[in-house]
Amino acid sequence: MAATSLICRECASTYPLEAQFVCTKCFGPLEVAYAPHPSAGDRDAIRRRIQAGPRSIWRYADFLPLEAGSPVGAGDFSSDGGLPAGGTPLVKADRLARRLGLREVWVKNDAANPTHSFKDRVVAVAAARAKELGFSTLACASTGNLAGAVAAAGAALGLPTYVFIPADLEEQKILSTGVYGANIVTVRGNYDDVNRLCTEIAGEREDWAFVNVNMRPYYAEGSKTLAYEIAEQLGWTAPDRIVAPIASGSLFTKIGKGFQEWIDLDLIDGVGGAAPKVPVMSGAQALGCNPVAAAFEAGQDVCRPVKPDTIAKSLAIGNPADGPYAIELARKTGGTITDVTDDEIKDGIRLLAETTGIFTETAGGVTTATLRKLAESGRIDPQERVVLVITGEGLKTLDVVRGTFEVTEIDPRFEQFENDVESRTEVPV
Amino acid sequence: MAATSLICRECASTYPLEAQFVCTKCFGPLEVAYAPHPSAGDRDAIRRRIQAGPRSIWRYADFLPLEAGSPVGAGDFSSDGGLPAGGTPLVKADRLARRLGLREVWVKNDAANPTHSFKDRVVAVAAARAKELGFSTLACASTGNLAGAVAAAGAALGLPTYVFIPADLEEQKILSTGVYGANIVTVRGNYDDVNRLCTEIAGEREDWAFVNVNMRPYYAEGSKTLAYEIAEQLGWTAPDRIVAPIASGSLFTKIGKGFQEWIDLDLIDGVGGAAPKVPVMSGAQALGCNPVAAAFEAGQDVCRPVKPDTIAKSLAIGNPADGPYAIELARKTGGTITDVTDDEIKDGIRLLAETTGIFTETAGGVTTATLRKLAESGRIDPQERVVLVITGEGLKTLDVVRGTFEVTEIDPRFEQFENDVESRTEVPV
Ligand SMILES: Cc1ncc(COP(=O)(O)O)c(C=O)c1O
Ligand SMILES: Cc1ncc(COP(=O)(O)O)c(C=O)c1O
Ligand SMILES: [Zn+2]
Ligand SMILES: [Zn+2]
Repeated sequence: MAATSLICRECASTYPLEAQFVCTKCFGPLEVAYAPHPSAGDRDAIRRRIQAGPRSIWRYADFLPLEAGSPVGAGDFSSDGGLPAGGTPLVKADRLARRLGLREVWVKNDAANPTHSFKDRVVAVAAARAKELGFSTLACASTGNLAGAVAAAGAALGLPTYVFIPADLEEQKILSTGVYGANIVTVRGNYDDVNRLCTEIAGEREDWAFVNVNMRPYYAEGSKTLAYEIAEQLGWTAPDRIVAPIASGSLFTKIGKGFQEWIDLDLIDGVGGAAPKVPVMSGAQALGCNPVAAAFEAGQDVCRPVKPDTIAKSLAIGNPADGPYAIELARKTGGTITDVTDDEIKDGIRLLAETTGIFTETAGGVTTATLRKLAESGRIDPQERVVLVITGEGLKTLDVVRGTFEVTEIDPRFEQFENDVESRTEVPV
Repeated sequence: MAATSLICRECASTYPLEAQFVCTKCFGPLEVAYAPHPSAGDRDAIRRRIQAGPRSIWRYADFLPLEAGSPVGAGDFSSDGGLPAGGTPLVKADRLARRLGLREVWVKNDAANPTHSFKDRVVAVAAARAKELGFSTLACASTGNLAGAVAAAGAALGLPTYVFIPADLEEQKILSTGVYGANIVTVRGNYDDVNRLCTEIAGEREDWAFVNVNMRPYYAEGSKTLAYEIAEQLGWTAPDRIVAPIASGSLFTKIGKGFQEWIDLDLIDGVGGAAPKVPVMSGAQALGCNPVAAAFEAGQDVCRPVKPDTIAKSLAIGNPADGPYAIELARKTGGTITDVTDDEIKDGIRLLAETTGIFTETAGGVTTATLRKLAESGRIDPQERVVLVITGEGLKTLDVVRGTFEVTEIDPRFEQFENDVESRTEVPV
């Protein structure tokens, strides 16, 4: 399924596979187009080829836009292939399901990626393509996680990196990016200001690959691997519903694209005799930055930009590039796009941690709180098989956990343990 | 290779497979003893059985002390089996090797475990055995990482947890433990005080499974899986040398035990016609808590307790239970046990991050700095194949990274980028 061109989502004009992201005719966004898969029609052959691959995104190389297939040496034990992105666990979360009154909930834990967010997937693809195109420097505009992913990828590949972030970002995300030796530029403004600046810089610095600006069509393809992995981990079936976060809307729409591609190739089996279909797509935003949810609920097709004000900083994109496509996908699949408050986000983080042992950042609090809200309001059929997408790690947004629990301090004496610890709590003795 | 008994390391007295950790005859530590592997002599059969297992520690269930083999449902997609520990990447680190003047360095990145340290391995085994023995509560004495691993395992399994930690622990480790709903007891004292208190509590609370106290023999077996994984990932061979951290000395000695078991079963091939052997074992400690390194270098067999004072808090055990066995193993394999300063630890963290994209906590700074020191002092043959063991995640000890790099703050205007960013640094344009 070799990539053939970039194609405009709006007017279908095509362009060569270079570092370009807008249609020069209509200013629509560009996507990667592919030739038919060479084994189309032979699903067993395609499945076998996938299963023989490494446990990383590169097992899906046939569906990604690299010339070389996959980077040299990429696999579980890679060196020049970069960090081993993908291959994250899909965990059956029975205790969470019970708490929500649902039958079957799975957690796709993408915090298990090398830099602990799904961004390692998109960066792996963009960075590999940047190398193929001969770029000497990696760069990005980031709400936090992308910065760390780019910095680490640069370190693994031996490329210098420049990351641009809003100045008010969580310190955890700055420290865990700077450690890789990245050049960090903090910008006095919000993500949308950062993004505007980077678009300008990308136009001026021709050997800089901004993974989510001039390399955006390649970058975006990386998110399809989340859909592929979920389908493969569910035994070549699709779940009934996916709950996933929306910032720019890229991840959300590409999950839909991934399922659609595999359904078209007959790689996904239907469940209970039904034909396979793209899962019902439920998008999740924070109330403090809800341009896509607001437009969806108002029945509009385009998003009105907002000024973000939420603890979910990784999702704080007020002017989402792929907002309209996210809305379109949610509508087409019979899904939803809703928002949750900062308090609901914090509760979502605790709920997930306490019932699964998985500690997520605010973005995962948003999806968990959204799942809870859908379940409690009866908008999910309790019989559905739901996949909750967790895209980032709790250690990166620790501040929101502070003050949500108590500790007991004692001297190292047994009497103090008996008096201060056991008398205070229900101890099952 | 079913477990048959607990056996005293000192006097070889045996005991039933219960929650006991010291020999009542000689006060020696107890280890798990096994019956011969049922397929002993048929290495292909054993290898095939392993390869057919899940990509987690449970693929090595035949070498672990559970009655049920592995916990119900344990695998990549487990629910009641707990968190998917193990199956972490072994990454070839060519840029690091070059920086150190070595030919072949691999990084075993155990920060990729569910709670981002190797402790998920030992907790998985201890918790599963605790369930088999009917315990109702999980507990531990921890230098930080174990607390998080126990808290998360309890959340995944639906068991209440009590974790005891020194009161001066990194806040990251406290927050990322409390989020799971653990009962946290901070103890005014160092780890050795905490451990003493927990030993007393374990004697009094018969239905509490302290994973590293009364469950210690089972717990310790979990670390063998690090050796198994390394051998399997290197194509059923052993590296020439392992560099691994030492706190209590359990991890270090069990890595040796894991290799020895597989050599005895003929599962490991020699390299270049040589017979397979246990790798040269290089132990790593912080200068501020170096009881094992000090004894090793002084030619002694037992360790003199120290009062820890180092940024490597996860390794801050002043009175290491398995110190003598760590010394014995290092001597037997022709290895080393050395220490590094806090500044060398910080530099080690940066070196690893910049050359591999892997961000480790202080414990990994200790092993990286140790590898550098051995390389620079010529104590490693540059032709060796070395595995550097990274046992924990940088996000948990962020404070030591603060101040090690600079950021540039600008307004979102291109001119400021040109003036403040590009003029200040070497930009490859
Ligand atoms: C943790 C996390 N989840 C989700 C997203 C949303 O990604 P997208 O911009 O593709 O909608 C981001 C984006 O920055 C993120 O960091
Ligand atoms: C990150 C890390 N590495 C290594 C160790 C050393 O383990 P051991 O006590 O088995 O020597 C610990 C122990 O707490 C740890 O937390
Ligand atoms: Zn167009
Ligand atoms: Zn004894």
